[in-house]
Amino acid sequence: MHHLYHCVSARSFRALWMLEELGLAYELHMLPFPPRALQRSYLEINPLGTVPLLVHGSSRLTESAAICEYLAALHPQARLGVDVSEPDFAAYLNWLHMSDATLTFPQTLVLRYAHFEPPERRHADVAQDYARWFLARLRSVEAALQQPQACADPGHLCAGRFTAADIAVGYALMLADFLGLAAQWGPGTQGYWKQLQVRPAFRRALQAEQAAARRQGVDSRPSPLLRPFG
Amino acid sequence: MHHLYHCVSARSFRALWMLEELGLAYELHMLPFPPRALQRSYLEINPLGTVPLLVHGSSRLTESAAICEYLAALHPQARLGVDVSEPDFAAYLNWLHMSDATLTFPQTLVLRYAHFEPPERRHADVAQDYARWFLARLRSVEAALQQPQACADPGHLCAGRFTAADIAVGYALMLADFLGLAAQWGPGTQGYWKQLQVRPAFRRALQAEQAAARRQGVDSRPSPLLRPFG
Repeated sequence: MHHLYHCVSARSFRALWMLEELGLAYELHMLPFPPRALQRSYLEINPLGTVPLLVHGSSRLTESAAICEYLAALHPQARLGVDVSEPDFAAYLNWLHMSDATLTFPQTLVLRYAHFEPPERRHADVAQDYARWFLARLRSVEAALQQPQACADPGHLCAGRFTAADIAVGYALMLADFLGLAAQWGPGTQGYWKQLQVRPAFRRALQAEQAAARRQGVDSRPSPLLRPFG
Repeated sequence: MHHLYHCVSARSFRALWMLEELGLAYELHMLPFPPRALQRSYLEINPLGTVPLLVHGSSRLTESAAICEYLAALHPQARLGVDVSEPDFAAYLNWLHMSDATLTFPQTLVLRYAHFEPPERRHADVAQDYARWFLARLRSVEAALQQPQACADPGHLCAGRFTAADIAVGYALMLADFLGLAAQWGPGTQGYWKQLQVRPAFRRALQAEQAAARRQGVDSRPSPLLRPFG
């Protein structure tokens, strides 16, 4: 059994989506956002106070892209990972790491300094700096989708099939769409994001977080900005 | 042959250190920092303009933690990776991803808004927010080193041996030390960083970047802040 600690629409959605793609049994523990402030008891389970936390036997993971990679590696028959023997192994790892370090973190600056901080602590220029920074880095996604090299194709980032890298990068696109940045994407990225959203496991993950939030009495709209999606 | 594009003390140091640990043949291409502004021709090789770039056959990687993971996986006999069959596989992946997404990115905010931006665009409060954010997340390193669980020990983050995760997190400590944040670390983290610095491969990596910078006529001090280390 997998225990996933999650806030609606937070980057822990990557882990939820991955669990649904693999059809694994899991228990979803919903938390208000940010849990560090709104549910102090969570600190006893995860002293960092961050989501996600995935507990699986004696394994504990707090990094959303690492969770995708971990679950893919534990279930090789599903082929959501890319093996070291495949030509796109390097690309797979690079997308997984890029998804959070390069494509999600800058967006959290936009969230913080344009929306979450009280008005006197907001910085429109910092939010603008990092919206621009994100869009510049996102060009590598557009390039991969438009000019497929090796095993990329217009619908997948690597290995010629849907992998955990598409989930990890797909979540960065989901967040950017929330933030109103999608209009500035290239056509390859826009089409790719549309294709990701019709995946049955993506839809099931959206339904699962809403149903669990209702059942557990957690606000399913953590901020006016992060409205339920899809 | 591996081609590594690198700026002195930048996060591409992770890749350089990893190459030295494995004793691999590589060519080191030094760039002034930031290459995007100071060496425009680099954009033809890497349109993102970022370091690192590792070119290895048909593989290209731009994420420093992904490069560590990639090289470890390609050379399993060196045991710098942790296999899916080992109990610390999850911890290994989590540290690798955490090293950049959670422990390095916040420090780049400190660099940018306390040092690199012209005075009128600096934000002392943003730099302070992210110095604090980094130190809060770093407590997980201290916890792992102080209260070893499973296969951690006081000198290594996981698997009871030196791995690519120690290189990836070690670089985040190197950067924090540059930024003057080391005094605020716990004793476990301070001791761990001291141990990492005496590794022969770490010293060779420092010497290699200095020698290559001199040979290639690149300033070995990319900013007053990022002075040559060690």
